[in-house]
Parts: sequence; structure tokens; C-alpha cells
Amino acid sequence: MPAMPDVGSLLLAMDLIGVFVFGLSGGTLAVRRRLDLFGVVVLSMAAALAGGVARDLLIGATPPSSFRDDRYLIAALVSGFAAFFFHGTINRLVKPVLVLDAVGLGLFAVAGCNKALTYGMAPVPAILLAVLTACGGGVVRDLLVIEVPRVLREEIYASAALLAALIVVAGQQLGLPEQPVAIAAALAACLLRILSVLRGWNAPRAPGT
Amino acid sequence: MPAMPDVGSLLLAMDLIGVFVFGLSGGTLAVRRRLDLFGVVVLSMAAALAGGVARDLLIGATPPSSFRDDRYLIAALVSGFAAFFFHGTINRLVKPVLVLDAVGLGLFAVAGCNKALTYGMAPVPAILLAVLTACGGGVVRDLLVIEVPRVLREEIYASAALLAALIVVAGQQLGLPEQPVAIAAALAACLLRILSVLRGWNAPRAPGT
Amino acid sequence: MPAMPDVGSLLLAMDLIGVFVFGLSGGTLAVRRRLDLFGVVVLSMAAALAGGVARDLLIGATPPSSFRDDRYLIAALVSGFAAFFFHGTINRLVKPVLVLDAVGLGLFAVAGCNKALTYGMAPVPAILLAVLTACGGGVVRDLLVIEVPRVLREEIYASAALLAALIVVAGQQLGLPEQPVAIAAALAACLLRILSVLRGWNAPRAPGT
Repeated sequence: MPAMPDVGSLLLAMDLIGVFVFGLSGGTLAVRRRLDLFGVVVLSMAAALAGGVARDLLIGATPPSSFRDDRYLIAALVSGFAAFFFHGTINRLVKPVLVLDAVGLGLFAVAGCNKALTYGMAPVPAILLAVLTACGGGVVRDLLVIEVPRVLREEIYASAALLAALIVVAGQQLGLPEQPVAIAAALAACLLRILSVLRGWNAPRAPGT
Repeated sequence: MPAMPDVGSLLLAMDLIGVFVFGLSGGTLAVRRRLDLFGVVVLSMAAALAGGVARDLLIGATPPSSFRDDRYLIAALVSGFAAFFFHGTINRLVKPVLVLDAVGLGLFAVAGCNKALTYGMAPVPAILLAVLTACGGGVVRDLLVIEVPRVLREEIYASAALLAALIVVAGQQLGLPEQPVAIAAALAACLLRILSVLRGWNAPRAPGT
Repeated sequence: MPAMPDVGSLLLAMDLIGVFVFGLSGGTLAVRRRLDLFGVVVLSMAAALAGGVARDLLIGATPPSSFRDDRYLIAALVSGFAAFFFHGTINRLVKPVLVLDAVGLGLFAVAGCNKALTYGMAPVPAILLAVLTACGGGVVRDLLVIEVPRVLREEIYASAALLAALIVVAGQQLGLPEQPVAIAAALAACLLRILSVLRGWNAPRAPGT
């Protein structure tokens, strides 16, 4: 009988895929800005790793995963080279940075929330940390090319990460099995984010502005 | 006989009020930039929490206070919503971002310096850390909307935080009671900052430029 | 018989000289942007200390060296004042920010790599950390004045730091004496960086852009 993959493996996989897709988002942005090969790889790695590094620093898990487990670094590097050589293919997809960013957002929110809970953080800080993990890479990516980060410009962004984190925490409180909850939470955040862009959903602006 | 509030309580209060006013400064800036509700809350939280988080990471106090004590998070959230709904009222005050920022600067410099000393740091690093705590939130706030941070643009800013930290360290060396020293130091920084702007005090520029 | 300076001393010296030259690079940039004395000192200190602070946070060595050993702080402060008062002399040299930055890049890459290896990190993460240490100060310096960081704009930059780190790791694997390897690695990075600018060496851009 094959062993069920355990929750740790699922979270590691989500974390690594998140690293890869955020790396692609950084790399394709860098190609669009006509950076050279090194610039593309640097921006990929910054986008891929910054959120997780911030999370690990904040929970005191030093050195961060990406400095202990070479698979993070490899995923980030591969994403940079993939963006460099295959940006044409990637760009033929609809709004690639948007979709990759949305997938990364969901995956990182779930992985961030679970890691924070595992390190004994209370639910509310764990949710904050999940949002930070999910948004951190994109913030660093956008700041490095001097753009106002997506998390500030876009209607539904931090709130999509918040949704995923709330689902993970609710699932834990209700004693639901972790794996389906994790997958559902990541999907919910990703879909909410993509739908909000495609449908043009608006968040309210301050009254009187 | 009512118990005297202890120094820990005073510092906590200064830290929390600092979080709130920096949060308001971030939130009102976000409203002025016409960010939506989520953007306003994100910028509030970044301005409110970044300085203290940096301080706690640097002294090795992980997870940072704002991830362990929900009052920090609540103060930051409330400041974001307050900025969103009451920015009209806040803006009718004179130069609200300036004043809020000055109050936060003084409070964070004192709280940062005291926390660093409590963690056994030597006076000089404690002063540096105080300045960083006080300036950090504003730097993150301004960078996120792609503005050169106030700490670089303004004549008297880091130096006001420096003054507060020097007073705290001097008070400690002289064995003065901590509470009045803390209050005096915060007031001194806040007044120096506000006066320097209202009076247009200039710091020297490099000779020959 | 005079004692040989030990490896620790050499690395400390490289770290401190790196702090000083990065501080000069930040300070002269600040003078060029017509910042006042405080702005110059702040930008000097940020450029001088950010890379090493990031490195120390990531390997869990808190508080960072620059908050424990006053010589870092003094080197950073002196560099700020030197840039303020002697920027005219510094600017008469050819491309001072470029050269200072290149020297700092080499020194920090070597010191960062060695410190990471000393803290027991594996070679690949140590190399990544070395690049981050070397590039971190310049990234913070450039972002604070809202410029796309040199590490993204310039052809050979992160790769020069990478070269230094590779030499250090190779030297360690081959059991070569540490001091000559450290000096050779720093020189190699510095020369590669300077030559790449003077000769206009190009890194490839993505095909089809």
C-alpha cells in the first residue's frame, strides 16, 4: 500500500511551487524591463525568496529554509533562467505575471500560515505572517524596479492572502484534516485574486476623496 | 493607595501610541494617494509596525512584539480604519502627517532605546537602534509609495530621534528615574522635529555643492 | 618574532574597510543629490551597514556585528562625514562611486562568505549569502534615493560577488591557506567589476526582446 504523502511534504511542495512561480513573475517582469541575464536572475530570486525569508526571520527560524535546503535556491534559479529563455512562451499566456503571482500568493499564504502555527504562534499573528509571506516577495520585486507594489495598487490582493490564512486557521480550529484544507485555501485565494482582476472588482475608496 | 504604573507599562504605552500615530501617518498618506481600503490598511500597518519589527529582529527578540502581543496589531489596524474613515477630520488639523510622524518619532526613539538597553546592548548601539526604530516605519511607508523617505529629505529628523536616545542614555548613566526621563526625551524629539519644520531650520549642505 | 595576523583579523579588516568604502559610496551619492548633513550620514550608514546586517540576521548572529562592535559604527560615521566634507576631492578621482562600490563589493563578498562558512552553512547557501552581503548595502542605498539598484542595472555586478564567493569556497574545499585566497578573491571581484564597466562588457539580454 503506497504511503499517503504527509502534510509536511505537501507544505514543502506548496512552498517550492510558490518559490518557482514567484520567481517566474519576477523574471518575466525583469525581461520586460530589458534587464540582462544577471538582472533577470537577481529579480527572480528576490521575488521568489523574499517572502519566505521574511517569514523565517520573524518566527526566529534562522537560517531561513531557503538557506538550508538547496531545493529553494534551485527552484528560484531555474525560474530565473526559465523566464529568461522562455519569456516569449510565458507571455503568450494571458497576463502571466498576474496568474503566476496569484498562484504564488495562495501557496505562500497557506505555507506561511501553517509554518507560523507549527512554530507555536497564535492564530492572529499567524494570519498576519501568512499575509506578509504571501505579499513580501512581490513587494520586494516591485520596489526593486521602482514600482508601487501590487499589494497597494490592486483591489483584492492582501485580502486574498488573508482569505487563505483564515481558511487554514478555521480548519485547524475545527479539527479538519490539514491537506484538503490547505489545498482549498490556496485555491480560494488564487481564484479570488484572478477573478477580482478579470471582473474588475473594486474595493471601496475613502469617503470624500 | 493606587500602585504607580511601572516603567514597563509606560514603555508599552509609548510603543502602542507610537504604533497608532505612525499607522495614522501611513493611512492618511495612503488616502491622499487614493489607495483603496486594503491599500490604506496595508500602508498603515507597514508604517506602524516596521520600525519595531526591525528593532526586535536586530536585538534577536523573535518573534517581534507585534507578532506576540495582539495589542500592537489591533492598534495598527484601528489606525488604518481610522485614517480611512476620518481622514477628512484628520486633515483639517495642520499638517497631520508631520505632527503624527513627529509624535511617533519621539515615542519610538525612547521605546527603542529602552528596549535595546534592557536587552543588554551598549549605549552607542542602543542609540543607533533607537534611531532605526524611530525612522524605520516612515522609511518603509515612504518607499512603498515610491517617495524618497522623509529621513533623507527633511532637515531635522534622524537627529530628533538621536536627541531622544541621547537623553534616555544620559538619564540612565546619571541614575535618574526612568519615567520622567522617558517622557522628557519623547517630548524633546517631538518638539525639535515640529519646530524645525515650522521655523524652517536648515541643516548644512556639503561645501561646494 | 612578530605574530602573523590571524585570519579573523584579516576578515575583520576587510569587513571594516568594506563598511568604510560603501559608506563613502552612499555619502557621495547623497551629496550629489544635495541632501543635507544628516541625510548624507544616514545614507552613508545605510549603504555601509545594510549588507552586513542582513547577513547577520540571516545566519542568526543577532545582534549583528555592527551593533556589537563600535568599530563598524565608527567606520560608517567617519565615511559619512568624509563624504560630506571631502566630496570634492573624492569626485576628482575617476568615477568614485563605481570604484568604491567595486572595492566594497569584493571585500563584503569575501567577508560574507567566510562568516557564513564559519557559522556552519553549506557552500551553496554561503555563496548566496556572500552575494547578498555584497549587494545588500548598495540596494538599500539606491532604493532610498529611488533609483533602480545598480545590481539590476549593471552588466557585471552580482556576478562579480559570485566570483569572489566561488574562489573562497573553492579555496576552502582545496584546503588552500585562507588569507591569500581571501585577498585574491576580493581582488578578482573588484577587478572584474571595474573592468566590466571600463570596457563596457555586456551580459546577454533575453532572446526576442
